[in-house]
Amino acid sequence: MIGFEPIGVVHSPFVEPSDVPRYVADRADAKGIVEVFPAYREGLLDLEGFSHIILIWYFHKSKEASLVATPPYDAGTKGVFATRSPRRPNGIGLTVVELERIEDGILHIRRFDMIDNTPVLDIKPHIPEFDSKTEFRIGWLEDARRTANHKTARSS
Amino acid sequence: MIGFEPIGVVHSPFVEPSDVPRYVADRADAKGIVEVFPAYREGLLDLEGFSHIILIWYFHKSKEASLVATPPYDAGTKGVFATRSPRRPNGIGLTVVELERIEDGILHIRRFDMIDNTPVLDIKPHIPEFDSKTEFRIGWLEDARRTANHKTARSS
Repeated sequence: MIGFEPIGVVHSPFVEPSDVPRYVADRADAKGIVEVFPAYREGLLDLEGFSHIILIWYFHKSKEASLVATPPYDAGTKGVFATRSPRRPNGIGLTVVELERIEDGILHIRRFDMIDNTPVLDIKPHIPEFDSKTEFRIGWLEDARRTANHKTARSS
Repeated sequence: MIGFEPIGVVHSPFVEPSDVPRYVADRADAKGIVEVFPAYREGLLDLEGFSHIILIWYFHKSKEASLVATPPYDAGTKGVFATRSPRRPNGIGLTVVELERIEDGILHIRRFDMIDNTPVLDIKPHIPEFDSKTEFRIGWLEDARRTANHKTARSS
């Protein structure tokens, strides 16, 4: 087994997983903080220059793992590794968040999906050269969105 | 402590960390595989449609952690959370790789930086809406690259 100790904790207005807005666009106004524990604060030096950071955290309220998941965008089940479902074999969450500022070991963040008291395992700078892709395919998600748009167009 | 079990292992032409090409552009030709252990293969369903996936893995050959790091791009030390250094408090690695195909639980990947025998903890689809940023600041890295380009221009 590989063991990790949390380096910090999230304080979030979302108390339960169901409080997290389903769409990224609806998360823009959410403000939260990551409290980095004092022993690790020296590691935050030079982080503030990055507009976006990657938070790696633990799904501490997730139910038991499952190898299949039913994501919100689609009615059918998918392999869990083809989704961002919390019920993963290793409950590791990953979110690219906006970093507003850092004050005394406290990261002020926006556009996140973590609930209150989420343990934080790692913080990395988001480097577009590594992490952003301009040409891509998104598999089942593309079909699911096309169907969703089609439904919206028909119902309006 | 939060404990995880590897769900797979990387087979890579890079044996030591020093074998990994420093620049992303130089990693394009590297071919490797992720062998997902049989117990987890059902979770790979529907993943093949994604051109890029996020691998979360363990720096199994990393030396002891340090809160400061000296990244390759820059002469000065930085806070470790402002770098992608392996010597992190929790040795979690994250790479967005190209997925070529999946065959019998084996992911054929390109453009990666993991060394041979790296334990894999999680696999997620790369979803540009969540993970790619078009407007960004990259702090110290921008200054370091400007200096590097300036040096290159002067020496040519």
